[in-house]
Amino acid sequence: MRQTFRLIIDCPDQVGLVAAVSQFLAEHNATIVEASHHTDLQTGRFFMRHEICADNISMDLNQFKSQFVPIAERFNMQWKLIDSHEKQKVALLASKESHCLNDILHRWHTGELHCDIPCIIANHPQMQQFADWYDVPFHWIDFSATSKAHAFEEIENLLDHYNIDVMVLARFMQILPPETCEKWQGKAINIHHSFLPSFVGAKPYQQAYERGVKLIGATCHYVTQDLDAGPIIEQEVIRISHSDSAEDMVRKGKECEKSALAHGLRNHLEERVIIHGNKTVVFAK
Amino acid sequence: MRQTFRLIIDCPDQVGLVAAVSQFLAEHNATIVEASHHTDLQTGRFFMRHEICADNISMDLNQFKSQFVPIAERFNMQWKLIDSHEKQKVALLASKESHCLNDILHRWHTGELHCDIPCIIANHPQMQQFADWYDVPFHWIDFSATSKAHAFEEIENLLDHYNIDVMVLARFMQILPPETCEKWQGKAINIHHSFLPSFVGAKPYQQAYERGVKLIGATCHYVTQDLDAGPIIEQEVIRISHSDSAEDMVRKGKECEKSALAHGLRNHLEERVIIHGNKTVVFAK
Amino acid sequence: MRQTFRLIIDCPDQVGLVAAVSQFLAEHNATIVEASHHTDLQTGRFFMRHEICADNISMDLNQFKSQFVPIAERFNMQWKLIDSHEKQKVALLASKESHCLNDILHRWHTGELHCDIPCIIANHPQMQQFADWYDVPFHWIDFSATSKAHAFEEIENLLDHYNIDVMVLARFMQILPPETCEKWQGKAINIHHSFLPSFVGAKPYQQAYERGVKLIGATCHYVTQDLDAGPIIEQEVIRISHSDSAEDMVRKGKECEKSALAHGLRNHLEERVIIHGNKTVVFAK
Amino acid sequence: MRQTFRLIIDCPDQVGLVAAVSQFLAEHNATIVEASHHTDLQTGRFFMRHEICADNISMDLNQFKSQFVPIAERFNMQWKLIDSHEKQKVALLASKESHCLNDILHRWHTGELHCDIPCIIANHPQMQQFADWYDVPFHWIDFSATSKAHAFEEIENLLDHYNIDVMVLARFMQILPPETCEKWQGKAINIHHSFLPSFVGAKPYQQAYERGVKLIGATCHYVTQDLDAGPIIEQEVIRISHSDSAEDMVRKGKECEKSALAHGLRNHLEERVIIHGNKTVVFAK
Repeated sequence: MRQTFRLIIDCPDQVGLVAAVSQFLAEHNATIVEASHHTDLQTGRFFMRHEICADNISMDLNQFKSQFVPIAERFNMQWKLIDSHEKQKVALLASKESHCLNDILHRWHTGELHCDIPCIIANHPQMQQFADWYDVPFHWIDFSATSKAHAFEEIENLLDHYNIDVMVLARFMQILPPETCEKWQGKAINIHHSFLPSFVGAKPYQQAYERGVKLIGATCHYVTQDLDAGPIIEQEVIRISHSDSAEDMVRKGKECEKSALAHGLRNHLEERVIIHGNKTVVFAK
Repeated sequence: MRQTFRLIIDCPDQVGLVAAVSQFLAEHNATIVEASHHTDLQTGRFFMRHEICADNISMDLNQFKSQFVPIAERFNMQWKLIDSHEKQKVALLASKESHCLNDILHRWHTGELHCDIPCIIANHPQMQQFADWYDVPFHWIDFSATSKAHAFEEIENLLDHYNIDVMVLARFMQILPPETCEKWQGKAINIHHSFLPSFVGAKPYQQAYERGVKLIGATCHYVTQDLDAGPIIEQEVIRISHSDSAEDMVRKGKECEKSALAHGLRNHLEERVIIHGNKTVVFAK
Repeated sequence: MRQTFRLIIDCPDQVGLVAAVSQFLAEHNATIVEASHHTDLQTGRFFMRHEICADNISMDLNQFKSQFVPIAERFNMQWKLIDSHEKQKVALLASKESHCLNDILHRWHTGELHCDIPCIIANHPQMQQFADWYDVPFHWIDFSATSKAHAFEEIENLLDHYNIDVMVLARFMQILPPETCEKWQGKAINIHHSFLPSFVGAKPYQQAYERGVKLIGATCHYVTQDLDAGPIIEQEVIRISHSDSAEDMVRKGKECEKSALAHGLRNHLEERVIIHGNKTVVFAK
Repeated sequence: MRQTFRLIIDCPDQVGLVAAVSQFLAEHNATIVEASHHTDLQTGRFFMRHEICADNISMDLNQFKSQFVPIAERFNMQWKLIDSHEKQKVALLASKESHCLNDILHRWHTGELHCDIPCIIANHPQMQQFADWYDVPFHWIDFSATSKAHAFEEIENLLDHYNIDVMVLARFMQILPPETCEKWQGKAINIHHSFLPSFVGAKPYQQAYERGVKLIGATCHYVTQDLDAGPIIEQEVIRISHSDSAEDMVRKGKECEKSALAHGLRNHLEERVIIHGNKTVVFAK
């Protein structure tokens, strides 16, 4: 994987903004590999993502950062600059279902997902075997043996211990407490097994079966305090028919869950997702 | 179009049922062109649709009907037998948007939809031109000049006058009164411009825009007294992104609306849709 | 529709390029509505499309053009600047099938396709009715009554007469002669009723039926002298099964044809398509 | 998984055929769980698949078979009767790519694919780890150390040794010799990484990249002596754009490969696929 610097900018739209940034990049001999822009016309907010070749740029990351500060201040930017070779630390949270967990582990193992996975945390013991196969430390928090508050305290301790950047709820069937949602805002990614906003909450396939929909889906979104209502990153659907039972839907829906979660996570890891209110800008490739 | 007889059966599931029907068909030398079966395991209800060649069967439609009665009674069937050459009479109801109306008229004009369209009814005058082009009588009911009750009375009179079998709400932006819903149960088809059950009611694209979904859709369903909650016949979705405004969604969503309505209506006209509670069995080809 | 200027650039990739263009835009107070970039890493070619608000820019189109010349020359650009309110003149060529023709005419009539349609040219008389409905002059060139060379001479004369910018082959079942292909390079858009490169040439649905594929499709592409081998703009597919006859495929495939052609044409008209060798860059929204 | 008997019939279409089969089933008190029919109107061939509840039928499998013989002979049927609890023995053949292999192993491990996997055979050693994780015997046939003829002799020996029913080429990058194709006709399933018949042979993503298609795909098909030309079971596609390199296509295409192979194999294992000439009837659920 070629080394790039990723410059992500989120600020009020202003004339001269793109010129200033691209002027800065040109002065430092930056080859732009990928550039994406978006202006939200309703809010007047501007979003920009540049991926530039690290090889021939006349600065290192820290110099880049310090020299960019005046531009950032001038245009009142929220911004970050990331070295593509840096790996974020991802904690996987799971319960009993392995399809999303195995899918992410395999993509990580084969290099498709560029990150570290320092631990898997689960409220059931069954996923231990997958953790062992991929040689990832596994922590079983037995929610039945403790209070929910204490269980989440243990989880928070583990996330701290491993210095986690992103928490992925890979079909983790426990609702995060409000303070965890708050603390991990924009850094906790969930996969919900319905096409949101339809079928919030428990047993969405059963709900879909009862409503008689002709397509089912899955939604990858950031976790917020409002259940299944956070900013949506990715959605997938699959066609079903009257001949599919609720169990068939569970099976068929797994395809959507795996795909939506993996693509949502990949876009997050590549800094392609910017949260804007309760929505996202996704500079997908 | 080859002439076929369509035999549609809906009854409690029982051993011997398929044997009795197929025995009957074989005795009358019926060549089966298409056969579809479905058992709803939850309700124990059985659904069957046969399309048989009319050429070589040793009965006409009326003989078929009268001779089939004993079998139907024995198995407690709800059933119908339809000659594929018979055309249902379809009334199109519209408002100001022409995309669904034009799409259906064109499919009808070119023989893709096998039906008669004796009239177009609208609560605005703009669709007159499409009616004229296709030489279909146009009735403008001016809802602003009369009470809603009286307007629907006029509509009911027109439906009676033209001896209408199916009413298609091709983006007709008026809510049918409960008694009309009741009377036209299973015979009034609506296209709702969202992926139901998400975004019921007014301005679904605006709702979708505000929620930040990544796919939008359309739903073709039978009208019931519960707004946008009737049995779903067909659904379509299309991918959108953060760069799409609510207006872009309106434009892109039209593709789904046209397609879902046309396919839903076609399946209805070919007797491929059986209502089962608040769901449908669709023996789609 | 808001008035914008569209600046399309195609040149060798160079550091400083984006800076120079965005500096120029900023100096003239241009609000960027949409910006798209692409670097082809294989060929080192750079492509850029800007859509900028015409309201507050401190130049008219001609001033813009003349002032931009030094930048264009410095970076060795192929470029154009288009006023979004200018309408291209589109000639529709058809044969006997109406689905694509009607679809484009309706989208044009309702303002979804921003262009003029000064004429429809056909090698059969049946499409006259659609031309009449939409009040577009119709020219029937009877290929059976003349030589093919002479027939295309007549067509070329009509294209000249109407001052046509783009020729759309909306299921026009005649192969353009090499000199017409040459002359209309990048300005003749065809819809082929297969998922190219599969099933080039005649009767693609029959070919698809015989091969037993599980998806069929349609391809919108620029016409070149190599039959069905020009740069692809858009492709669509639809699922089929063993129960679909070749006739069913013809019917189902129409959905793909209409959609691929309409979207391809729309992108062409909005200057979102740049031809690069035998491929296209499509800055789709 | 509920036990069912699956009765698969392939014979010339005749009046009385369905009646005779359903009469037979009714006489033995068979509850039909699923019934599918297809008549190929071109060839006059009839295909039927019944899934019947094993619980309440008044025969065991062998009695069923022997009593069904007279009907089968009368209608000149090719037929089979399968107990759904019987597991077919599937050999996985692989090379260096793990995505399809891991996907199938996981679906098998979690019970989604009902079969035995007695061995994995590969022409490279890298897949050993996946075999070990899933505790499946792994055989590395080193094609570089022996003749191709001898290597395939070893493979044939292994297939015999493990009493294999179906061979799955999960991105196995060796072409089967004609005699193996012949012997395993209808029992060797390949995944080709293109939307066939486009891009037969080597490096299909590179071919797709060069042609500039807007969708790429994968095809699951039975192996025949003609390379990538056997009966197609399943196809999947995914949208790409000018911004995708050939490497991006390789990554994105994996989604299609995994999905098409898994669904094709599942349908094969559930006896839903009937080969008809160079095409397939797939009674998919």
